[in-house]
Amino acid sequence: MSAQDPAALRPWRVLGRKPLFALPPRLSVALEAVALPDGRVVEDYVQIEMPSYAMIYAETAERRVLCLRQYKHGPRRVSLTLPAGHVEPQEDAQQAAERELLEETGYAAPEWRKLGSFSNAGNQGCGLCHVFAAYGARPVQPAQPGDLEEMRLELLSRRALRAALAAGDIAIIGSAVAASLGLADVARRRKRTA
Amino acid sequence: MSAQDPAALRPWRVLGRKPLFALPPRLSVALEAVALPDGRVVEDYVQIEMPSYAMIYAETAERRVLCLRQYKHGPRRVSLTLPAGHVEPQEDAQQAAERELLEETGYAAPEWRKLGSFSNAGNQGCGLCHVFAAYGARPVQPAQPGDLEEMRLELLSRRALRAALAAGDIAIIGSAVAASLGLADVARRRKRTA
Repeated sequence: MSAQDPAALRPWRVLGRKPLFALPPRLSVALEAVALPDGRVVEDYVQIEMPSYAMIYAETAERRVLCLRQYKHGPRRVSLTLPAGHVEPQEDAQQAAERELLEETGYAAPEWRKLGSFSNAGNQGCGLCHVFAAYGARPVQPAQPGDLEEMRLELLSRRALRAALAAGDIAIIGSAVAASLGLADVARRRKRTA
Repeated sequence: MSAQDPAALRPWRVLGRKPLFALPPRLSVALEAVALPDGRVVEDYVQIEMPSYAMIYAETAERRVLCLRQYKHGPRRVSLTLPAGHVEPQEDAQQAAERELLEETGYAAPEWRKLGSFSNAGNQGCGLCHVFAAYGARPVQPAQPGDLEEMRLELLSRRALRAALAAGDIAIIGSAVAASLGLADVARRRKRTA
């Protein structure tokens, strides 16, 4: 809009922060006073903190993707999902990814790649979604998810996962982005080795 | 985990709901009492309502993807984004998508496709992200975003968008999923017409 506007694309400055509501560990809400690059001040920009989580696109050596089918209360339906879970306070994101893959599926993997980190809301924040790919996954122990949801492990071909995504079988944005980035990563790997 | 468990994969039943906090129109928080299929009752399952939004993967006839570069306060950095915005009360999701594309870029498109709807949080809900593809977009008026952010329109090739996604240039999950689903949709269209 304003290639000639030198104020464009500079970060906002946070002038102050007023906590409004907290329900640990699920969320906290605050109003921030922010100064925009053009000089305007917004006194009550809503910021929401939520726990960050790891999402895992994991393949076996046979190129099967480890998926879970479960009822999820957010979308209020049964959804195909990828293994995922919150990053605990003592962990980094990859440690959380490795732990959640093991707990939810019983699989471990020798090769890990970070595929990206994304804010869950462009304006309010709402925590980060950290996406990992894991290759060469194999079963090493029984799954022990310990979650409220009953989960069924499904090993999908890449083609079946792509079809599930296009068909609306994945109801949650984190699983959708991890499935997409994982499929893009394996396409890049295939090109490099071709 | 329990293919033999007839209780698996049935929806939870909501027994009651207690509002906790509201900051309209940004969010409201409630505790739900829910009955799980195995008979357990959880008295305080946190549910968060947030506005649903539309995300748009729009291409010109020359196969350029309409992207915006802007500072976003959620991730607290400059990010490549796709056009997007909240679904207003009087609109359906596609009307919001068409309006936001026009406001943020000045472009309109004759061909629209719904690519999916996703809960922003698997457990807490946090509103829906509705993803649309628009083809044959062309400029029809000056952009008038009316947002707090200064935006710069960038017309990227599919290859450049794919590279931006892999390089971490997209910091927000809604833009990442819309870019991924849009690129997958054009790959499917190319296959069908090949």
